[in-house]
Amino acid sequence: MKIELEQAAQILREQDDILILTHQYPDGDTLGSAGALCAMLRQMGKKAQFICADPIPKKYDYMLTGIPTMEVTPSFVVAVDVADRKLLGCLNEIWGDRVDLCIDHHGSNQLYAAQTYVDATAASATEIIFLLAKLLGTTLEQPILDCIFTGLSTDSGCFRYTNVTPRTHRIAAELMELGAHAADINRRMFETTSRSRMELERMAVDSLEYEFDGQCALMFITRQMLETSGALESDVEGLASIPRRIEGVKVGITLRERADGRFKASVRTGPEIDASQLCGLLGGGGHKQAAGCTLSADPAEAKAVILQAVGQML
Amino acid sequence: MKIELEQAAQILREQDDILILTHQYPDGDTLGSAGALCAMLRQMGKKAQFICADPIPKKYDYMLTGIPTMEVTPSFVVAVDVADRKLLGCLNEIWGDRVDLCIDHHGSNQLYAAQTYVDATAASATEIIFLLAKLLGTTLEQPILDCIFTGLSTDSGCFRYTNVTPRTHRIAAELMELGAHAADINRRMFETTSRSRMELERMAVDSLEYEFDGQCALMFITRQMLETSGALESDVEGLASIPRRIEGVKVGITLRERADGRFKASVRTGPEIDASQLCGLLGGGGHKQAAGCTLSADPAEAKAVILQAVGQML
Repeated sequence: MKIELEQAAQILREQDDILILTHQYPDGDTLGSAGALCAMLRQMGKKAQFICADPIPKKYDYMLTGIPTMEVTPSFVVAVDVADRKLLGCLNEIWGDRVDLCIDHHGSNQLYAAQTYVDATAASATEIIFLLAKLLGTTLEQPILDCIFTGLSTDSGCFRYTNVTPRTHRIAAELMELGAHAADINRRMFETTSRSRMELERMAVDSLEYEFDGQCALMFITRQMLETSGALESDVEGLASIPRRIEGVKVGITLRERADGRFKASVRTGPEIDASQLCGLLGGGGHKQAAGCTLSADPAEAKAVILQAVGQML
Repeated sequence: MKIELEQAAQILREQDDILILTHQYPDGDTLGSAGALCAMLRQMGKKAQFICADPIPKKYDYMLTGIPTMEVTPSFVVAVDVADRKLLGCLNEIWGDRVDLCIDHHGSNQLYAAQTYVDATAASATEIIFLLAKLLGTTLEQPILDCIFTGLSTDSGCFRYTNVTPRTHRIAAELMELGAHAADINRRMFETTSRSRMELERMAVDSLEYEFDGQCALMFITRQMLETSGALESDVEGLASIPRRIEGVKVGITLRERADGRFKASVRTGPEIDASQLCGLLGGGGHKQAAGCTLSADPAEAKAVILQAVGQML
């Protein structure tokens, strides 16, 4: 059932011993949302803890170290930035059908939780968490400030993508005034590249292929590339935006070989094509301009299957 | 002489037949400032025109086509975003000692104009133009909105750099609400890459060298690379930020071979090093974290000279 944000706030006021779930392969937005919400609930005197199916990349330590682990016997479960229970990863089996409240900004949310608040106009899930904090009367202090700013900045490509609204910029301004380490966060998230990431990027760009008269560009990120470059899983973040950036490309696809050998397609589109709909054809989902799906372990087959879907959309 | 912004506004109210000068190798900020100021003055019933020593890249057409060329016999000359009269390029000879008013956001401004307003806390010169528009009672409409937003966005690396303040975000929000084509501008400026630019970037990255135990990274962009990749001069923009982005690098240097064969050094630094001071050692200047200078036509000598200066700073 869909609810309003004020109802979500009211529900949280009434609950305690709250477990917060993030999505697998965690990014700045799901972790920022979880960290901020966790700190907000603790500020209200409640017990709260967040968990993730995958290890949390070290690069997010700066915003999360201020939220020490707390033992919680969950009586209420919240998922943040999780559009589909499958995205909970291995937590899906345990918690997938027991999510009481979901707070999300994906229009494609599967409404798997008992109650769901979705605002697809929010640039990030933390943009919603900020509005929730206002309703809850939260004192906006660290680490809440940095958590919210991180989600805002990372999910909007540092205020670059079409999901940015005047509200996004105003929230960024307010967070900065209150003491968010905006410049430092942007530097960490966007301005720092490891040598191995630089090498991985070059290899990925080398694999670029153009299809459908240059309307589609497709790039591979294989496990061998990661090995050769010495890049880490976390070095892959953001590479998926490269194919779409090329002039004339309406659909940019990155096929990334996962640990299990299968390929994860990250699809980025221009305004003409609905990425969420495209990935929906192959059992995936996401946003209008950024979505994903999981494909076969055979690179040629993975490519053929996704290109067929692209053909249907073009 | 340094003046306040209100004084600059008063001076402009009293003048007519105004010539606006931009810096050579024009970017989004100098052109956005010139375009917006020109349209603002015309809105006040004045004659105004802007000029540039170099051709204006086609990619800025979207914001400038709304400002048709007007014949003006200049009785008052304004320079925008021009820290040093030498940066006027070939316009320096004609106008360099006749600049009545300079509006700039470079702390290193050489105060070559009769009267100068500098606000080094502004992320872009257009941030100042926005504040000036408020003082002048300008109706914020197109093309003023897109011109101001373009400068704001391009000079801040799309709200990424340390020069961004809460004021920058609030101005962005207001411009968007009034109808600036923010998403479209960001896509044009940051999300669109030609195939040849992609190729040029790869070649440039190939030339990366590390010095001073990885504290300095240096990259070349030669005329041959431009030729081989088919990249245009305008494709070079933004590449200079690459060396600084690498982990551990405090000084990132891009040596770009200019049309006259000499090398232009673009220096980007972390918070520990003052780029403006570094380039000042070699007759250049700029901002604390982004500056430039012109070097010899011999690549080995250019590299040796700039590395010596880096050595002095590290």
